[in-house]
Amino acid sequence: MTDHVDYTDLLNLTATLLERGYGYTATEAQITAKVLVEADARGIPSHGVSRLAFYRANLDQGHAKPGSIPKIVHETPCSLVVDGLAGVGCYVADFTVRKAILKAKTVGVCQAAVRNSNHYGIAGYWAEIIAQEDMIGMAFTNTYIAGVPTFGNLRILGTNPIAVAIPQGNGQIFLLDMATTTVTHGKVELYDRRHKPMPHGWVVDERGKVVTDATAFEKTFYQTNFGGHLYIGGEGEESGGHKGFGLALLVELLSSGLSLGASSLNTFPKGGNGEITHFFSATRLDLFGDPSAIKDHVAEILRAIRESGKAEGHDRIYIHGEKEAEAREKALKDGVFLDEATQNYLNKLAAEYGAPSIKGLGS
Amino acid sequence: MTDHVDYTDLLNLTATLLERGYGYTATEAQITAKVLVEADARGIPSHGVSRLAFYRANLDQGHAKPGSIPKIVHETPCSLVVDGLAGVGCYVADFTVRKAILKAKTVGVCQAAVRNSNHYGIAGYWAEIIAQEDMIGMAFTNTYIAGVPTFGNLRILGTNPIAVAIPQGNGQIFLLDMATTTVTHGKVELYDRRHKPMPHGWVVDERGKVVTDATAFEKTFYQTNFGGHLYIGGEGEESGGHKGFGLALLVELLSSGLSLGASSLNTFPKGGNGEITHFFSATRLDLFGDPSAIKDHVAEILRAIRESGKAEGHDRIYIHGEKEAEAREKALKDGVFLDEATQNYLNKLAAEYGAPSIKGLGS
Repeated sequence: MTDHVDYTDLLNLTATLLERGYGYTATEAQITAKVLVEADARGIPSHGVSRLAFYRANLDQGHAKPGSIPKIVHETPCSLVVDGLAGVGCYVADFTVRKAILKAKTVGVCQAAVRNSNHYGIAGYWAEIIAQEDMIGMAFTNTYIAGVPTFGNLRILGTNPIAVAIPQGNGQIFLLDMATTTVTHGKVELYDRRHKPMPHGWVVDERGKVVTDATAFEKTFYQTNFGGHLYIGGEGEESGGHKGFGLALLVELLSSGLSLGASSLNTFPKGGNGEITHFFSATRLDLFGDPSAIKDHVAEILRAIRESGKAEGHDRIYIHGEKEAEAREKALKDGVFLDEATQNYLNKLAAEYGAPSIKGLGS
Repeated sequence: MTDHVDYTDLLNLTATLLERGYGYTATEAQITAKVLVEADARGIPSHGVSRLAFYRANLDQGHAKPGSIPKIVHETPCSLVVDGLAGVGCYVADFTVRKAILKAKTVGVCQAAVRNSNHYGIAGYWAEIIAQEDMIGMAFTNTYIAGVPTFGNLRILGTNPIAVAIPQGNGQIFLLDMATTTVTHGKVELYDRRHKPMPHGWVVDERGKVVTDATAFEKTFYQTNFGGHLYIGGEGEESGGHKGFGLALLVELLSSGLSLGASSLNTFPKGGNGEITHFFSATRLDLFGDPSAIKDHVAEILRAIRESGKAEGHDRIYIHGEKEAEAREKALKDGVFLDEATQNYLNKLAAEYGAPSIKGLGS
C-alpha cells in the first residue's frame, strides 16, 4: 500500500463522511471537504482531513451546528458583519467571502467581520479565493487559546493566523499564510514523539519561562491554561517577541473586536457554540490602475528577490505560496500524501458510515 | 545641563532649521518637525530629530526635493495613487493621509499607494492620525535596503515597517508599529559601540550565516550589499524566519507593487530621487456597527490580556502603544530626552542658520 491517494477519491470520501456521518448538508460537506483536502494537497496535513476528528469533537461538544444559515447583522456597500450562528466554519467562511467579493466587485473594496463561527480550515484558502478575482485577499481568524503574551504566563490568545493573497502577473499568487505563533502545536507534538529538545523561543511553561523539553511541556499543556506557545520573535523583546504578540493582537482585534464576537479566551465554552471570529478583506487591484501592469510589477519584484544571492548551503529562496502550489500540482498528478494513521482513521469512518474505503494508489 | 528639552522649543527649533537651513516650505517644515519631535517624545530617538542628518544627506544627494507638490495619478472614490515627485516624505504622507481620510469619510474605506516619495518618519504617526478619526489606520512603507530573505545572502528588502492603529473605548489607541526586521540597525550600532555580542537571529554575514560580532558586522555593512538584517523569526524556517520575511514582502508588494514604484532594492539610486513607496489604509469603524460598542469591546479584549497572568520576574504586560503614549505624556510635562550628541548637533545647526540654540531644562 502506498501513502498516496487520488485527490478526487479523497474529496468524495471526505464529503460523503461529512454528510452521512456528521449530518452536514450536502453543500457544507462539499465546501468543508474541499478545504481539508486542499490543505493535504498543499502539504499542510495539520489542517487536512486528519482534522475530521476535531470537527467530530466540535459536533459532539455542541460547538458546531450543521444546517445553521449565517445571518448578516450589519452591512454597508463595502462592509459586512455576519453572525455564523454556530454553523460549520468552512460554510460560514464561504458564505461571507462570496458576499464580500460581490460587494468588492461593485464598490471596489469590502471588509467583513464574522462572529459565532467555527474552525474554517487553512486561512490561506479564503485569501486565495479572493485573489482569484484579481483582488487582494486577506483572511484572519482567532482560534482556541494557544499562545502567551510577551511577559505573560497564561494562554489567552489563539494561533491567530494572518493570510494575505496578492495576484502575480504569471498566473501565480503570492500567498502568505502564517500562524502568528512561532510554530503550530503539531510541531511540538512531533518533538515530543521524537524526544527531541525544542528550539528556544517556541513555548513557555506555567511560570512563563522558556522550556525546550517537549515531553514535559505536553504533559501539562492539556491540564492547565498556564504556559503555552510564544509568538514569532520568541521570548521577551530582545528578538522581537513583542512584535509577534502584537500581530496576534491585531488579528484578535480585527476578528473579535470588529465583530463584537468572543475573544480567543472565550471560544469553545463548555457545551456552548464554538464562538470563533474571522475577518476578511477584498480589495480590487484596479483601484490602483491597470491590473495587468500591477500584477507584472508584483511578479518582477518577486523575481528579483527569488533570483538574488543565496546563503551558503542553500540554492533557493522561496516566495510564499510556491512550496504549496508545487505540492498541490504534484498531488493532483501523483496523489495526495496521507500518513497511515490518517488513512486508517478515514477507512474506519468509511466502514462505520457505509462509504467505500480509500485505497493507496497502486496498491 | 539636563538631557531634557521643552517639547515646543524643540518643535519650533526643528521647524526653523528645516525652513531656513534645508529650504523646506513652512508647511513641509512644520509637518516634518512634528513627526520627528513626536518620535523623540514617544521614546523612539532613532526616528527623532537626530534624523536631521539623514534628511540633510537626502537633500545633498538629490533624493528629496522640497517644494514638490505630490500628484494624484489615479483615483476612485475609495482609492488613491500618488506620485510624490520626490517631495519631502512627511509632506507627501500628510497630503495622502488627509485625502484618504476625506474619501473614507464619504465612502467608508480608502486605500492609498504612493510612489516616488521619501522617508516619512515613524509609520505609527500616520496610522494614528487615521485612528484619531474613529477609523482603523494602517501605514506601511518600504525603505533603503536592510534585510536579507530567508536562505538569501543579499540585502534586497527594507526594514519595511507595519503600523496599525485601532481606537479603543478609553480614548487610547492600540498602536502596533514594528519594523519587520528583528531589530533596527540602531540596535546593532549600539552593540558595536559596547562591544557586546548580538543575540542569534539579528543579522547574517556575506555568506548568509548568522553572526553575533557586531563590530565585525558593522565593518562590512557599508562596503557591500551582501549580509544584513534578518526578519522576525530569525534564520531559516525553524523559528519562523520565513514568516518575518513574508511580512516584509507583504509590505513591499502593497507599497511598491500597487504604486508601480521602486522596490526597496531600487530606492536611493545615485543622484536620483529617493523613490520610497508607501501604502495607507483608512477604514471607518462604523462600517461594522456602533463605533462606541466596538471601541468598548476592543478595550475589554485588551484589558483581559493586560490583566492576565505574568511571567516570573515580570509585573506588566504591555499593550502596543502604551509605552509610547506614557513616554509622550511624560515628555510633554518634563521635557523631551535628547542625548548630548543630538543636542550638540542641533545647536551647531542653530548657530549655522542663525536660530536660537536649545537649552536643557533647568540648565
